[in-house]
Amino acid sequence: MSNSKLARALLAPRSVALVGASADPSKNTARPQRYLRAHGYTGSIIPINNTAAECLGETAYASIEVAPEGIEHALIMVPGRHVLGVIEQCVRRSIPVASIYSDGFAETGDEGRKLQERIVEIARAGGMRLTGPNCMGMINTHMPCALSINAVLDIDTLNKGSVGLVSQSGSVMGALLSRGQARGVGFSKLVSVGNECDLSVGEIVDILVDDADTRVILLFLETIRKPDALAAAARRAHTAGKPVIAYKLGRSEVARELAASHTGAMTGSDDSANAFFRRHGIVRVDTMEAMIEAPQLLIGAQPPQAKRIAVLTTTGGGAAMVVDGLGRLGLDVVPPTDRIIQNLAAQNIRIQKTSLTDLTMAGTRKEIYSAVLGELLHSDHCDAVLAVVGSSSQFQPQHAVEPIVCAMPAPKPMAVFLVPDAVQSLDLLHKAGVAAFRTPEVCADALAAFFSWRTPQPDAAIGDVRAAQTLLSSAAGSRLNEYAACAVFEALGVPIANTRIIRTPAETVDVRFPVAAKILSPDILHKTEAGGVAINIGTPAELYAEAQGIFERVRASRPEARIDGILVQEMKKGRAELILGYQCDPQVGPVIVLGVGGTLAEVYRDFCVRLAPVSIEEAREMIEQVKGLASIRGYRGQPKGDLEALACAVARFSLLAQTAQGAVIEAEINPLIVGAEGEGVAAVDGLIELARH
Amino acid sequence: MSNSKLARALLAPRSVALVGASADPSKNTARPQRYLRAHGYTGSIIPINNTAAECLGETAYASIEVAPEGIEHALIMVPGRHVLGVIEQCVRRSIPVASIYSDGFAETGDEGRKLQERIVEIARAGGMRLTGPNCMGMINTHMPCALSINAVLDIDTLNKGSVGLVSQSGSVMGALLSRGQARGVGFSKLVSVGNECDLSVGEIVDILVDDADTRVILLFLETIRKPDALAAAARRAHTAGKPVIAYKLGRSEVARELAASHTGAMTGSDDSANAFFRRHGIVRVDTMEAMIEAPQLLIGAQPPQAKRIAVLTTTGGGAAMVVDGLGRLGLDVVPPTDRIIQNLAAQNIRIQKTSLTDLTMAGTRKEIYSAVLGELLHSDHCDAVLAVVGSSSQFQPQHAVEPIVCAMPAPKPMAVFLVPDAVQSLDLLHKAGVAAFRTPEVCADALAAFFSWRTPQPDAAIGDVRAAQTLLSSAAGSRLNEYAACAVFEALGVPIANTRIIRTPAETVDVRFPVAAKILSPDILHKTEAGGVAINIGTPAELYAEAQGIFERVRASRPEARIDGILVQEMKKGRAELILGYQCDPQVGPVIVLGVGGTLAEVYRDFCVRLAPVSIEEAREMIEQVKGLASIRGYRGQPKGDLEALACAVARFSLLAQTAQGAVIEAEINPLIVGAEGEGVAAVDGLIELARH
Repeated sequence: MSNSKLARALLAPRSVALVGASADPSKNTARPQRYLRAHGYTGSIIPINNTAAECLGETAYASIEVAPEGIEHALIMVPGRHVLGVIEQCVRRSIPVASIYSDGFAETGDEGRKLQERIVEIARAGGMRLTGPNCMGMINTHMPCALSINAVLDIDTLNKGSVGLVSQSGSVMGALLSRGQARGVGFSKLVSVGNECDLSVGEIVDILVDDADTRVILLFLETIRKPDALAAAARRAHTAGKPVIAYKLGRSEVARELAASHTGAMTGSDDSANAFFRRHGIVRVDTMEAMIEAPQLLIGAQPPQAKRIAVLTTTGGGAAMVVDGLGRLGLDVVPPTDRIIQNLAAQNIRIQKTSLTDLTMAGTRKEIYSAVLGELLHSDHCDAVLAVVGSSSQFQPQHAVEPIVCAMPAPKPMAVFLVPDAVQSLDLLHKAGVAAFRTPEVCADALAAFFSWRTPQPDAAIGDVRAAQTLLSSAAGSRLNEYAACAVFEALGVPIANTRIIRTPAETVDVRFPVAAKILSPDILHKTEAGGVAINIGTPAELYAEAQGIFERVRASRPEARIDGILVQEMKKGRAELILGYQCDPQVGPVIVLGVGGTLAEVYRDFCVRLAPVSIEEAREMIEQVKGLASIRGYRGQPKGDLEALACAVARFSLLAQTAQGAVIEAEINPLIVGAEGEGVAAVDGLIELARH
Repeated sequence: MSNSKLARALLAPRSVALVGASADPSKNTARPQRYLRAHGYTGSIIPINNTAAECLGETAYASIEVAPEGIEHALIMVPGRHVLGVIEQCVRRSIPVASIYSDGFAETGDEGRKLQERIVEIARAGGMRLTGPNCMGMINTHMPCALSINAVLDIDTLNKGSVGLVSQSGSVMGALLSRGQARGVGFSKLVSVGNECDLSVGEIVDILVDDADTRVILLFLETIRKPDALAAAARRAHTAGKPVIAYKLGRSEVARELAASHTGAMTGSDDSANAFFRRHGIVRVDTMEAMIEAPQLLIGAQPPQAKRIAVLTTTGGGAAMVVDGLGRLGLDVVPPTDRIIQNLAAQNIRIQKTSLTDLTMAGTRKEIYSAVLGELLHSDHCDAVLAVVGSSSQFQPQHAVEPIVCAMPAPKPMAVFLVPDAVQSLDLLHKAGVAAFRTPEVCADALAAFFSWRTPQPDAAIGDVRAAQTLLSSAAGSRLNEYAACAVFEALGVPIANTRIIRTPAETVDVRFPVAAKILSPDILHKTEAGGVAINIGTPAELYAEAQGIFERVRASRPEARIDGILVQEMKKGRAELILGYQCDPQVGPVIVLGVGGTLAEVYRDFCVRLAPVSIEEAREMIEQVKGLASIRGYRGQPKGDLEALACAVARFSLLAQTAQGAVIEAEINPLIVGAEGEGVAAVDGLIELARH
């Protein structure tokens, strides 16, 4: 089906069937019919009810089979076990889209998952698209078409707006509509996607990119099911100038467990999700009300070049609450420039060169607030402006917000925080398109989200992975030993410590001494305990003796173990020992992880995750973001490590994602030794896990 | 003046003078008179105006001098330079209390500070008490007496309530009243303290402890000026069953700068402030609306024994937003017990053993929600209950909140989060005394604050510091060298590495080899650079040679330096090297700081701060809270360090706070070596800075 036909059937159907509609208005399944009419739907409503001849005053039909022609969208509310039959009928009647409210599918376990898969097969074969199951339907405020069972539609009116919402939680869709309405913030379309058996979040985002009523796209996510579709849609949205904002559950362990049980979806790590958002230009917010308040801040804006914010207030204490949050989130609150101070002085307005421009009570005079705000908005010393208004916003809303409204359209993003309870002022500001915030925390969250916003990153330049691929293809078994793994890393372009395998103590090696010797055996994981390690070996003669000792001790302690020889490796010392990991996140796919070595990275959760592969620029950013690497970034005058060689190694290592799809499921270099500037890096040990053939 | 007389004059005066009241109702200085009458003040209002014979219909007087008898409280609004004269008049007329709105004092710099000090002298000499300057006055909702210039009093009515507020920001006082009113949350008294030239936050808290209308005390703080008064008052409040909740600015560097410039106060570290709150049983919240919503959660409650919370919801997505926050804040979300599941099954209610008890739509039936909530509230498997309600709270408020209201009084703290916009339900809940939250973040913040709440800790047992005191008293100069400092630590009971001073290479030492040798000189900070260090010295003969070398190299590189000898110290190896510090925080006084050694503690900001001295129990808690000490707490099977010896050393070191007041301004042990279990700890190096005599 064409995109435009799909978009119309999904979001603006001219004829809808309500399958399982109740004739009893007190039942939940009677709601959609009631809501459609209450909110002014002018298309055909076709209740399907196998006992009643009419529902709430409209002719009902016993089944889809006998319903009139022209149905574009079926909302299916029958018990889960009957859904399959209904879908078959829809296919026969060539209904293009169905939204399945019914539950009892993938969210309940394996049996439900199979039933869900069967339904999708039937729909696909018939050229039909599905949302849900376990979804709450869709609301189009502009058409209008309130095709949902969500009780939020008991509201009197449905505000129109420009925020398109895609939500994995039907109840949160309702809550956001409810909260938005109360604040004068309207949505364009709201789509509940449930289990996403067919149409996924990404595909609906893609449709919203082309929706003229939608200027910003909001996502409420419990998981990420089809990352490729979402990535592509987010990139298209960016190109179309429509920011994509996501709130995602799962920042804590307990919430990840919940999401898994609640959605029946695999959950990946939150760090991986962040890497995904970052790569594809999706802005993440952390607070519920930011979903209502942040969109306005981003509409029409572009990702910022720097993180400088200027703050203007009439009340020090009130503004300090936001600024405290901004400081914690790492933003720079910048004082006015000398030029701004001079310009204002010329108008007889005296301000200080302090980080917060506090006009105190004098600032409640409109011409003063206007003049200062104008200077800040038009100066290039800051990338956004925060305007805080005190008690006047409560009792003189018109007067208090006038300087702000008059500054629109603002030449840069402007956030407004009102310190008292000031519903009218908030409403006036929203109507004028101003991003106005009710709490200091949400204001700080939205500003931090704006400042974390990045243009979608291009796919990292594809490197040559043929040599590595050859090694991987010829590997036997599912786990490569440290020697074979390091050979793959070297083939990708990661420097490795010079290493040889000897089979007998008498073999000589062309490795610079001192060396380390380690038993090589697929059966021995804990080499030291097996007597299989010797370090700081200074001469070939010592190596001979140590190798003999290793063979003897290992044969004694682990007589059953297969022995492949002894690894002889030059001893590398550097400025730091890092871990570089590669994993396939169950949500977003291949990621790489950079962290300091040892247990500290775990204890402090200090590592940086990015989608693989990464470009050299992204690798440099990763190095900046690992706090523990301060020691090789020149912290307190300590000598720097070879950061450029490290960035290069990170980017090369990440090319594992370019090898045959799914072959490598996990890889790790541990440790990666980073030398002083100019001395390079070297992988000393590592492993690769392959998907079982 | 007696406490009760002060309390009455400050918070319930029967006659007030408005010094500088305007006869022009549009002026700010006309507001207090207008507000007093508008909100039903029945006492005498005496406007002082040197030109008008009457203000807003009441007789005005040219000065305090000629005003009628019986004034209990003067609100002073004249320009700052006239305040001193007014205070002199107030003293002559024996007015017990004045609130000074006028600004131009300590917050403006040294000159203002001196003027402020002069005013306090005059008031003290005359037995008069002051709030402000730069304050907004006071509001007593019960009397009522709205003696403030804050524009929030343009509200129509003034809700009564049980929350007593003391605020260092007048505008935030107004904003909280405004926001509370909008939510049906009332205050008992609201006091703006401004610069706290005389009456400090602590002294006003102390008065509120005895205020019958106040059940919980809320603080909005920019700094802590008189910690001892606040500490004592917080402890009395705890004994009286009145929780003290604080929101304090200054969590970020930029906010600390702001507070300094805005209040004219010294600012200490935020960690020290936390240590202060914790010691004295003050609960800290992080979000603005928690100041409105958290008090209800704490009224009547006691500090919890454990951190287990049970969660009940009718909407998975909505509850998950709170749970995500709870997980991030380190709380344990616990599933129902088998017994609860059985009890409910007996009533035909099926719930799962999952961390979130999601009743889905079935839970909107009152008897089901009631039954489950009752089981959770009456089971001892959790220390608090979070009840989440979905869309029914918007359209059927009475029905939706009934099960919750009926559960009151709850046998344990219960927090309620309403997912949609549900103003009526919130209001019903507040009226029933239920802690109801509008956003998931504030709900999580308040619960985390509740779970961090501790009973005020007793002062740590006083140890014997006489020997240390003797050493400190006899010290010459302001800085003790490492030998003298370690001697003080040893005198306090902290084990130190065995150390001797030799003056010539030939001296012998009774220290176990291997040893380290370090030049001892008040002029040499960087000993290694001066050639003044040798380590791993294995024998007396080697020591002789190394000592000779040290003397020669140092004399060559630093010929001018005074040489006190060479420190010879046994080389200690342990499981970890820590830093233990002692500082006098400018806000809260002596604190100790425990962290891991090296730069990582700084990079990760991983250290634990407590008020000094600490008890052995507090020292154990500190060890638990330093993440990097995982390595000696048995993380991943690593061998433990001697944690008990460490706790003991921390407590002993903290006794520095018991030495002559203010003598030691800074001290540090770096490193403190922690041996394996049973092997003790040893201070290897350190310093002490004394206040200059």
